[in-house]
Parts: sequence; structure tokens; C-alpha cells
Amino acid sequence: MPDIAAFAAQSPTSDLAETRIHRGEPAAHEVAIDIEYCGVCHSDLHTARDDWGGTKYPCVPGHEIVGRVVKVGSAVSKFAVGQRVGVGCMVDSCQTCSSCEAGLEQYCETGMTGTYNGSLPEGGYTFGGYSKHIVVRQEFVLSIADTLDPAAAAPLLCAGITTYSPLRHWGVKAGDKVGVVGLGGLGHMAVKLAAAMGAEVTLFTTSPGKAVDAKALGASRVVISKDRAQMKAVRGELDFILNTVAAPHQLDPYLMALSLDGVMVMVGLPDEAHPAPGMGPLIMKRRSLAGSLIGGIKETQDMLDFCAEHGIVSDIEMIRMDEINTAYERMLKSDVKYRFVIDMATL
Amino acid sequence: MPDIAAFAAQSPTSDLAETRIHRGEPAAHEVAIDIEYCGVCHSDLHTARDDWGGTKYPCVPGHEIVGRVVKVGSAVSKFAVGQRVGVGCMVDSCQTCSSCEAGLEQYCETGMTGTYNGSLPEGGYTFGGYSKHIVVRQEFVLSIADTLDPAAAAPLLCAGITTYSPLRHWGVKAGDKVGVVGLGGLGHMAVKLAAAMGAEVTLFTTSPGKAVDAKALGASRVVISKDRAQMKAVRGELDFILNTVAAPHQLDPYLMALSLDGVMVMVGLPDEAHPAPGMGPLIMKRRSLAGSLIGGIKETQDMLDFCAEHGIVSDIEMIRMDEINTAYERMLKSDVKYRFVIDMATL
Repeated sequence: MPDIAAFAAQSPTSDLAETRIHRGEPAAHEVAIDIEYCGVCHSDLHTARDDWGGTKYPCVPGHEIVGRVVKVGSAVSKFAVGQRVGVGCMVDSCQTCSSCEAGLEQYCETGMTGTYNGSLPEGGYTFGGYSKHIVVRQEFVLSIADTLDPAAAAPLLCAGITTYSPLRHWGVKAGDKVGVVGLGGLGHMAVKLAAAMGAEVTLFTTSPGKAVDAKALGASRVVISKDRAQMKAVRGELDFILNTVAAPHQLDPYLMALSLDGVMVMVGLPDEAHPAPGMGPLIMKRRSLAGSLIGGIKETQDMLDFCAEHGIVSDIEMIRMDEINTAYERMLKSDVKYRFVIDMATL
Repeated sequence: MPDIAAFAAQSPTSDLAETRIHRGEPAAHEVAIDIEYCGVCHSDLHTARDDWGGTKYPCVPGHEIVGRVVKVGSAVSKFAVGQRVGVGCMVDSCQTCSSCEAGLEQYCETGMTGTYNGSLPEGGYTFGGYSKHIVVRQEFVLSIADTLDPAAAAPLLCAGITTYSPLRHWGVKAGDKVGVVGLGGLGHMAVKLAAAMGAEVTLFTTSPGKAVDAKALGASRVVISKDRAQMKAVRGELDFILNTVAAPHQLDPYLMALSLDGVMVMVGLPDEAHPAPGMGPLIMKRRSLAGSLIGGIKETQDMLDFCAEHGIVSDIEMIRMDEINTAYERMLKSDVKYRFVIDMATL
């Protein structure tokens, strides 16, 4: 296969620009995919700019990939040419450790291979979805129902599974009182998913202006987290909180909003630590503060099927590939409702 | 009943000294107990000195009480005169909220009544076990097997249940890899109890001198927590950690010692916050940081029965009542193996 078009950062400070990268022919167990849409995740921006260290250049971000199968290897049984599929944050793992055997490839004991900037055993590293085409082993390819809008389904591959997995792992069910902290790409998915599971959703936000949106997305209540009286009024009420805010913030007021045995799960990695939580809020009601990383492949397929069944996709703003640098600046100002998706036909 | 002898602090800065307090006759549902032994908990010291605020004076501490029933009210069915019994950290709760109905009186929604310094609905407040005699409603009286050394059983009423409850709540079972942080009054009970449950126990301590004791108590391994290489060597190994250290310390090295889905439970309230834990250790292996407060009454009885079955008591140093002030000073230097117990015959 000839080299293909992609968009890459060449250094931490350079804008992303068009380049060409190599993709091989699919091996026996691999699937070749023409990419139609790619969601834009905050991790893309942080990796492109080497905010977390360890970025290899050129860097082609993108791990919310939707496209069509164009070729399959001889051993591929799960996918056929023409089928609509997705690829999320991982493209490989050891497949043999206890985590992988439990369908928790994201916690692979030898480390999963990220869809971009992931080291390859044969040397080199992975290029992500800001490109025309990708080749992925079938175990990491997801099936996307034709009933879902493919562009709006793209963010399900990261924002969707990152919020769905903890809701399922901690057993959120109909009637549960669930809090969601933050109404961004992850938060708006968390509200939709928790509401679809039958939970009574309280959205915590610093922005009173988000209340109307939050209710339209499925929240039954909005609490302005800067308002001490409002925070005090919900003390001890919630069974579970999914905290999607990575910016450093006080955790104690949210922990205090949990009932006995309540759990708050963090899914964002802050650049600087959150202020230290008190042990009192944990001890006095046997509460837990936990973390969760994306989700496994089987669970990602479950999530996509759940979304198809409930008609859930992301609220998106479609952009052209050459608008990506502007989109990154707008993301830093939270100026997006609620996820940018790149129309890869524009590359 | 005439006023009885007790030991009380009269102000935050005064030594404890003998005084006299009033105890009423047992009401219909109450049990009158002659106190034989009373364990000395760090909370006694902190309350006597008003370290946490809110102490009412005179303050009679003591919530690890063992004695003999000397009189019962007309409605008492569970206890008989002459029986050996215990009283722990609580002497009352609403008995009607969902926590109380679930046997979790320590999390009573209107607040449980502490054995000392606890406000009474009729006004006044409770006096604890540094006294000759106590009257307690039968629901908060525990049965102590005659096979247990009554003095060494006293610390089970707080140190025992505080460590037993989280081990049970988080389902520790035979073969589990359990860490215990700190080898004090709580830590040494945690090691004994976890080992008796069949767990493989790793004791974390800053004091290499405690290794021999820890192994004698049931630990299969001792890790010196100040030694980075030792801490790194146990990364990802433990299913559960019970952290009994209240002094502020870095939590991340312990969180990193947990395996996938591992939980660290804190049972001590630090005067100043622990340094902020990182979200990375939580997110990258779906770990949890939780808290736990003593245990419910039914679970306390289960713990006492478990201890009788396994021959478990606290390692104690017996003191006279008039040695309590010296004992407090020694506790502040961790100079006790591993719990002081007052012989109430000396009052």
C-alpha cells in the first residue's frame, strides 16, 4: 500500500499539518479500515504538545475512529469488507495476562498499545486516526451499528467507554442517584448514559449557563458547585459520582455528597494534584474515591450496542481536518458542544 | 445508686485525676455493669485534651470496656447478672434509620451516641469506662466469651472491631494478599485478624525493629516503608491494604502496592491532611481509597466470637488507674506493646 495522508505534529510547539505515513497491508488477523470520522479528545492535544512527556514525533493523534472495512486478513472471521467499524484507545495488548483474559485489556499487565504514540514490539510506534486509513488486529476492532450516525458515534470510542465502564463496574442501576461532575466531552456522555440506565442524574457544574443543556441531555437536577449552599443541600444524597473534571479542584464537597458506601470515580488525570481530600468524609460514611481507565474491548462493544439500542451518540461539532489547530485552542477554552469530530473526507 | 469513682480530665491541660460521677439505676432495657478492665485508645487522649474540639468537662474517657453484669432492667432478655460483657465506642443510636436497621449503628443518620463525650437527648453527656460502673441499653452490650482473657479482650471493643470490620466488609478471605500499614494498637490487631482469616499478611512499618514482632503476630513479610526499593518490589501485589497510621504520610506508595481493583482503607483521622494522593495510581489500576469507622454492634459480636474461636486477644500492658497520665505520654511516643489496659480494681 502506498503511503497515505495524515495530519501530524512535528514538535511540541508546531501546529498539526498534513504529512504522509506508512500503513502496511493487513496481516492474517488484521483489518484494514478507511477512516470516515475521528473524534478529537483532550489526550490528542496533550500528546501532540508533549504535555505528559514521552511523545514521539511526528505524532498523529486520534483514537475515536469510525470507518469502513476495506480489506481483511486471511484469518479474520469477525469482520467483512464494507462493514462499519470503530477503533478506540487501544490497538493491541498481550492477550494472555489475567487482565486481558478478563477482558480488561486496558489494564494489561505488560501495558496495552495505545492507538497513537504506542510503542510497537518490532520497533517504531503507532499513528492514530487523523489519517485516511488504519490497519488493526481484529481483536481491537469494534462493530458499529448502521443505525448510529457514524460521525456522532466516533466519540463513543473514548468518551463513551470511559464513562460507561465505571457506571457498569460499580453497578449503577435504575433508580440510583448518580452525580456527574463537569459537562464536557466526557460529562455529557456520562449524563446520557447514566440517564439511559435509569439513574436519577445530578449534574455538577461551575457554569450556571449549562443547566438547560444538562437537563436536555438527561439530568434531573443541576447543582452549581461553586454555591456552598447548593452543595450542602445535596450532602449524603448520591450513591455514585462520576467525576470527569481533570482541572485541580476540591474533592471533599463531592465526597460529602455521597451517601453511606458511596463511591466517587475519577476519570481525568490532572496536571497538578487535586487538593488533598480529607479522610473524614471517607471514614465517616465508608465512602470510596476510585479511578477508572477507559474500558475493555468486550465492554466497549457492549457500550456500542447499548448506545444503538438507546439511540445514544455524542453531541458533536464537525470540523474539517485543516481546522484542527483552531479546534485545539477552542477545546482549551471549553468552547465546544461537546466533542469535535473530524470529517476525514476533508483530508 | 450513690455516686461512683471515676478518672476525669477537668480541662484540656489538666492531668486526669479521681473524681466522682453519677450513674443511674438501670431502666427497663438497660444493663448495669461493674467495670473490670478498660483499654486506652488514642481517642481517649485526644478527647481528654480537646485536640479535636468539642470536649465537655469533666471528661471521663474509655470505650474499650469489659466487666460483669450486676443488675438488669425488667425488659432485658439478652443478659443475666454475673455474665461477662463488653461495651465499645457507642452506647446508643436512633435504632430506626436505614443504617441502624442494617446493623450499621456507627453510621446512624442522626448520629450515634459515643460512650464518652456523647450528647444525651435529655441533656448532659456520657462518661466512659475510666470508672467503676456503667449503665448501657442492652442493644449496645456485647457478650464476651469466658475463654478470652478479659483484660486482653478489652481492646477488641475498639481496636479489634475497627480493623475487623473493613477486613470483612471488603471480603478478605483465605489466600488474599493483605497489607497492614503501621504496627500500633490497631495495626497489631489487623495483623492478627487478617492472618486468622487466612490472608497472607505484609506489614508496612517505618521501624525495622518491629519486624520480629510483626512475624510473631502473623505477618509473612515485613516491608520497611522508608526503603524505596522495598516499596517498589511490592508494586501491584496486594489485594487489600488496611492503613492504621493517622500521622500524615504519602499514600501513593501504598496505592501503587495494590493490584488491579485493589482497595486501601484508612481508619485513622490525621490532624493534618495526608499529602494529596495522585489520581494516576487510582486510574491506572482501577484502585480505590476508602475509609471505615469502627463497626456495627452485630459485627462487633461476630468479631468477639471470631476472636474466641481463634484465641485472639490484644497484646497488652496492664496499668494502674493512677498511671494513666504517664501512659498517655508513652502513647504519644508509641512506647506501648500494643495497648494499655487499665485494671479498674486499682481505682
